[in-house]
Amino acid sequence: MTTPHPTHAIHVPAETQVALTKRLRRIEGQVRGLQRMVDEHRYCADILVQIASVQEALRSVGKLLLQNHLTHCAATAIRSGDAAEAERVVSELVELWGK
Amino acid sequence: MTTPHPTHAIHVPAETQVALTKRLRRIEGQVRGLQRMVDEHRYCADILVQIASVQEALRSVGKLLLQNHLTHCAATAIRSGDAAEAERVVSELVELWGK
Amino acid sequence: MTTPHPTHAIHVPAETQVALTKRLRRIEGQVRGLQRMVDEHRYCADILVQIASVQEALRSVGKLLLQNHLTHCAATAIRSGDAAEAERVVSELVELWGK
Amino acid sequence: MTTPHPTHAIHVPAETQVALTKRLRRIEGQVRGLQRMVDEHRYCADILVQIASVQEALRSVGKLLLQNHLTHCAATAIRSGDAAEAERVVSELVELWGK
Repeated sequence: MTTPHPTHAIHVPAETQVALTKRLRRIEGQVRGLQRMVDEHRYCADILVQIASVQEALRSVGKLLLQNHLTHCAATAIRSGDAAEAERVVSELVELWGK
Repeated sequence: MTTPHPTHAIHVPAETQVALTKRLRRIEGQVRGLQRMVDEHRYCADILVQIASVQEALRSVGKLLLQNHLTHCAATAIRSGDAAEAERVVSELVELWGK
Repeated sequence: MTTPHPTHAIHVPAETQVALTKRLRRIEGQVRGLQRMVDEHRYCADILVQIASVQEALRSVGKLLLQNHLTHCAATAIRSGDAAEAERVVSELVELWGK
Repeated sequence: MTTPHPTHAIHVPAETQVALTKRLRRIEGQVRGLQRMVDEHRYCADILVQIASVQEALRSVGKLLLQNHLTHCAATAIRSGDAAEAERVVSELVELWGK
């Protein structure tokens, strides 16, 4: 899993926090909906369509987080003048790219 | 959302059903974990890593469903000799490809 | 790389063949365009946009091939009554899913 | 297509330039290989495997460009103190995410 990085610059404005929580709750509901579809022996291709829709919703949460990360956390690291910290932030983002 | 297709050939063996339910419950837990990470102001990049992990888990559920679909539902349609039904099943899969 | 499977049922109608060749030639041109952009020191984000466009074009070629594969090659295997061959074709497709 | 942005901070070190050109030439060769596979009526699933391999190679070029972009161009924009320019760079990256 993940480990806390208490020293990282973390900043999520309250409205972004609210938006993220709202979207993740909706995604949780969608995943429960998938379980229901499986229970009710729904047509596989319809379940696959719903999975694609959950994937899309997660990508959209990822974009919101990325925007926040680039605007706040990563920007702070890049501006800090600490080359090692800036490099770490860049590697992190490159690693996540295309996942 | 999706609509039921009562006339589609649907067949999910009991053990696949159990595996799907188990994995989807774990994914539901992962999504709740994401909400907790947001609540606890965790580092954005760590949340992005966890999102990638949920996406991977969903892809893996999708593969299991696809395997079942191709082995049972789609195979039945293709073997049926009903050209329109076979074509519909193929279009459905092509549509889902790369999503 | 790949190895030839001379025993596999392969069928690509002439018009699909032509469409695939045409699209792949255009993609080859797009890749040369990427090289030019790099040579001309174009803005990285613009090159990334062009890469995404080549990826999309390749996905679209993949869909055309998949449609052909499901309609002809895979369908032949599934209809053949040869369970091992049908299973091989299904595994192949599941393996390719989400790549 | 893309338009030049003469005012953007662009910096690609010579060795990155060389690496990008080398990889893109190899990708061009792979795309020509795909055309040959189509010409030679190769098995569709084998062609799909090769397409996935080209996609992977493109993703890898994308990562190299992204790393360069974040280290040089985007970093310059973020450090510039020009809020609009920094915001533009962030939006660009968010837009490209998950493509």
